[in-house]
Amino acid sequence: MDLTKASGVYVIAATPFHDDGRIDLTSTDSMVDFYRACGATGMTILGVMGEAPKLDQEESVSLSKHIIKRAGPSMPVIVGVSAPGFANMRSLARTVMDAGAAGVMIAPPNTLRTDDQIITYYKQAVDAIGDDVPFVIQDFPITFTVVMAPKVIRSIIQELPSCVMLKHEDWPGLEKISTLRGFEADGSMRHVSILCGNGGLFLDFECERGADGAMTGYAFPDMLVDVVKLQQAGKRDAAHDLFDAHLPLVRYEQQPGAGLAVRKYLMKKRGVIASDAQRKPGAGLSAKARAEVDYLFERLARHDIRAKAA
Amino acid sequence: MDLTKASGVYVIAATPFHDDGRIDLTSTDSMVDFYRACGATGMTILGVMGEAPKLDQEESVSLSKHIIKRAGPSMPVIVGVSAPGFANMRSLARTVMDAGAAGVMIAPPNTLRTDDQIITYYKQAVDAIGDDVPFVIQDFPITFTVVMAPKVIRSIIQELPSCVMLKHEDWPGLEKISTLRGFEADGSMRHVSILCGNGGLFLDFECERGADGAMTGYAFPDMLVDVVKLQQAGKRDAAHDLFDAHLPLVRYEQQPGAGLAVRKYLMKKRGVIASDAQRKPGAGLSAKARAEVDYLFERLARHDIRAKAA
Amino acid sequence: MDLTKASGVYVIAATPFHDDGRIDLTSTDSMVDFYRACGATGMTILGVMGEAPKLDQEESVSLSKHIIKRAGPSMPVIVGVSAPGFANMRSLARTVMDAGAAGVMIAPPNTLRTDDQIITYYKQAVDAIGDDVPFVIQDFPITFTVVMAPKVIRSIIQELPSCVMLKHEDWPGLEKISTLRGFEADGSMRHVSILCGNGGLFLDFECERGADGAMTGYAFPDMLVDVVKLQQAGKRDAAHDLFDAHLPLVRYEQQPGAGLAVRKYLMKKRGVIASDAQRKPGAGLSAKARAEVDYLFERLARHDIRAKAA
Amino acid sequence: MDLTKASGVYVIAATPFHDDGRIDLTSTDSMVDFYRACGATGMTILGVMGEAPKLDQEESVSLSKHIIKRAGPSMPVIVGVSAPGFANMRSLARTVMDAGAAGVMIAPPNTLRTDDQIITYYKQAVDAIGDDVPFVIQDFPITFTVVMAPKVIRSIIQELPSCVMLKHEDWPGLEKISTLRGFEADGSMRHVSILCGNGGLFLDFECERGADGAMTGYAFPDMLVDVVKLQQAGKRDAAHDLFDAHLPLVRYEQQPGAGLAVRKYLMKKRGVIASDAQRKPGAGLSAKARAEVDYLFERLARHDIRAKAA
Repeated sequence: MDLTKASGVYVIAATPFHDDGRIDLTSTDSMVDFYRACGATGMTILGVMGEAPKLDQEESVSLSKHIIKRAGPSMPVIVGVSAPGFANMRSLARTVMDAGAAGVMIAPPNTLRTDDQIITYYKQAVDAIGDDVPFVIQDFPITFTVVMAPKVIRSIIQELPSCVMLKHEDWPGLEKISTLRGFEADGSMRHVSILCGNGGLFLDFECERGADGAMTGYAFPDMLVDVVKLQQAGKRDAAHDLFDAHLPLVRYEQQPGAGLAVRKYLMKKRGVIASDAQRKPGAGLSAKARAEVDYLFERLARHDIRAKAA
Repeated sequence: MDLTKASGVYVIAATPFHDDGRIDLTSTDSMVDFYRACGATGMTILGVMGEAPKLDQEESVSLSKHIIKRAGPSMPVIVGVSAPGFANMRSLARTVMDAGAAGVMIAPPNTLRTDDQIITYYKQAVDAIGDDVPFVIQDFPITFTVVMAPKVIRSIIQELPSCVMLKHEDWPGLEKISTLRGFEADGSMRHVSILCGNGGLFLDFECERGADGAMTGYAFPDMLVDVVKLQQAGKRDAAHDLFDAHLPLVRYEQQPGAGLAVRKYLMKKRGVIASDAQRKPGAGLSAKARAEVDYLFERLARHDIRAKAA
Repeated sequence: MDLTKASGVYVIAATPFHDDGRIDLTSTDSMVDFYRACGATGMTILGVMGEAPKLDQEESVSLSKHIIKRAGPSMPVIVGVSAPGFANMRSLARTVMDAGAAGVMIAPPNTLRTDDQIITYYKQAVDAIGDDVPFVIQDFPITFTVVMAPKVIRSIIQELPSCVMLKHEDWPGLEKISTLRGFEADGSMRHVSILCGNGGLFLDFECERGADGAMTGYAFPDMLVDVVKLQQAGKRDAAHDLFDAHLPLVRYEQQPGAGLAVRKYLMKKRGVIASDAQRKPGAGLSAKARAEVDYLFERLARHDIRAKAA
Repeated sequence: MDLTKASGVYVIAATPFHDDGRIDLTSTDSMVDFYRACGATGMTILGVMGEAPKLDQEESVSLSKHIIKRAGPSMPVIVGVSAPGFANMRSLARTVMDAGAAGVMIAPPNTLRTDDQIITYYKQAVDAIGDDVPFVIQDFPITFTVVMAPKVIRSIIQELPSCVMLKHEDWPGLEKISTLRGFEADGSMRHVSILCGNGGLFLDFECERGADGAMTGYAFPDMLVDVVKLQQAGKRDAAHDLFDAHLPLVRYEQQPGAGLAVRKYLMKKRGVIASDAQRKPGAGLSAKARAEVDYLFERLARHDIRAKAA
């Protein structure tokens, strides 16, 4: 598994709970199977949208093992190991790698400001987890308040050979992808995979700028997979047609603080998970919001029918 | 002019510059005329997207006067007067009101945290500008980092009779609109107008939740006007059809840090302004970005043609 | 043990490491004995200055147990259980309470803004850890960016009977102590202990405003103990004389980002711990800084001699 | 006037108001005279502690002119021109330079994050105000949330010849001074003056690290002047003795959000200004706080008497 060549969609997996808050392993299995059926290349677990901070250490480990096993060797699993300190980061990283994870994802703590602070942090993280563990940089300024200049990302990639991928969710970010791919072109940076987050809100153009695909958890991963494929096949208009049909819902799901509730509601509606329960703190959907999602879902369905009839 | 009953679209006006950075009054006039022709109810000037901080005090005043005069009595103008201190806020507010502005808009400084700090700030602002000046609360946490609970907004509205409107751009914000309209329904809050920002990204549903329209500067204000009208006429599907056709471009224009360049490029493309120049600091569009906007523009045009043919 | 009546000094304990980063239990024991000999009433462990995030879960638990045992029943131990999520907070809280901890301390996550968000967070935390676990509110806006109005603290105290103490390190904070004690006087709030942090920088006056003592880790806890005693005995001038003699060093140790290195260096110098090593990330002292601390230490020693001679 | 060689104390001037909020020019004059009598080398006006944002543009200009005239050619005046945009920064900078200011001070806006963003900002600022205007970098992360690595400051100094001074108030900051002076020693950076802020809380050691003095507004500028002189004369112990005697009050005055009230109260007490009124928003001192300041003042007076008797 060479993650630097990863392409397609790594779905940010939800964590299915029973209504009473226990982890629902049956739904977890059906979710993994669903992601595979959608054509996902891999999965990313224990991210923010996987409610990672709401699991205790033991649950994090056992859930990771369970998912890695269900996914099997054909579907690589990346595990979020961001932590307030390196000790827990190390112990989780070593444990999940031993269990068969393909790599880990590390977000910068929100105290980092200068270029050198960010680079030093990733060096220390690699010291902690070991340089044999492939890792993904998560670049998500809106949530983490850490802004990584393209040249900072280049430094991390050049100085740390175990860096294999960038999860790109800067905003605006299209120029950043172009700049990074330009670094490759001018020989100043080796190639890593770039998968994009932000709920897929710019996936249509991100692919055109040089991204290899998506790493996000939109409730219709099949759409994400198809958009990436269409773009890679050069079918630009078709990619945008498909993407645009989903955009009203993508946008609705991308609301900070409300998105996960929408996503779980849709996954339940699609029969993927049994309950859309979140652990606290986690806002549910109001009746009005559910009706709005239903409305968007119906409009999407009509579009699909029209599309198939065409 | 009772702004508490304002409805429709108050366009956040751009500030047209010549390529060399001087204010372009000819383009300013054509822009005002364009907004009127689009069906805008009013205008809001000297906002962030109007590059207000890049104008010096004298320019701010003379531009305000020019626009207010061009807009005329049928098109109310709200002027952004947010300032690091109350002295400049007062002097700008008094000056533009004397020149015929319909009201002013005030954003909270990013140091405010507790509920009482926010309420006190607005009280002090009214002490400064005078309680005869109608004012708009700008609730935009993503940019200002100030989070106003619905009950804080209610306190401001109840305690300060000169508050006439909420510019709503919290995110997620649909429930907030419902909560505020619920306060009206239960008699705990008087009515004010709610116009929504965020580039219009949620306008389709905001109208359904009780908003009176939009206050944003999307390059196609005609669409915003029509969506609000369709929703007010109960034509839900038609509103969403129109909105969805624009959503790829709305979304593209809504990128933080890149949006204004897109907007001005489109306004120039539509012939509204002569140059898309911004004053520094202000990022322009790369060739790739321009091509992307052109592509979205063409797709939108094809949709319109299809729509008219249908 | 009724922590609502706690008084004196709860020392924020350091975590002693060997030079190679392993936890040094021998130094831990001598540190506990030292704190006791200094007259400390209790200890607080696994705080920021205890390098809590640099311990993995297993280390946190075993170190807590070790310290609680060494401290014995006469010296209550409060354990910091702040965590990104409630699941880990709960598991750590239950474990240390079973091991004999006197209570836990909870800091608010830096995403909280409105009054109700803060109150809700503490309610959910109590739901998670159980309402049989005495807890301390940590009010430290400079580090956590969460600002708690006095009335918010009152709401938490009134609505959550298991709240026993406020660790007060707002800045400026003297008026806050007066306001909270005023709430007690007017009957709107029950009594809880108020112990002050901020490295002790304002302890002289905090005692006069109604604080019960200090919760901080200054390398001379004996001074903190004596200042509190002198103030409680009404010997104001003597309290200030003693405090002022230490203030140059207190101030030096209170530098954000450098304080822990100073503190550990001084503790090593005083023979309390064997090494002043910190785990990464953690800045050491430059040669110049060490010389500065040595200089302040010598000046302090001269003062003590003069004081004793007088 | 070569500000790169500035040394001693540039007092951050308060802005004296009458009780009703009007600017008090008589007190302004006596304040300028007082600063001169204290031995201040220069003054800095329109800073945060000068309540700059509470003055309107006209007041800022007329007050600047008044103070510059009163100060006369022997006492250089630096004017704070930080503004949300370059247009107002330029107009204020040009106006005060024409009126005889020695230079201007520019703080970075709180949106800057990466190294290059900070450097670019200062380049654009110089483009705006003109490269003939000597400027001071204000490095104050606790207030502005912008962190400037030493190498970023070096880039600004090397690339912008009109940079003449650093107002240093990073925290912790002693190592930063050493690093910057090290850059000079190794030839990678030209010399500029370094004057320190933070209310003087670390002035004793800052001088030893290579700072040229202080730029702060502590109510006893005479002490700051003497500490700098003693340090420059190599009288280390005497410098610390004097500094330590004031430290309890320096520390009290340095409380964020309360400091200006303390400072103005002390200046009024010393007879320098007629009223300690602040414009809104600005917290006054409670009766308890006034009594605390009085107490510290008396203790300081006793120390001075003892010192003179010795």
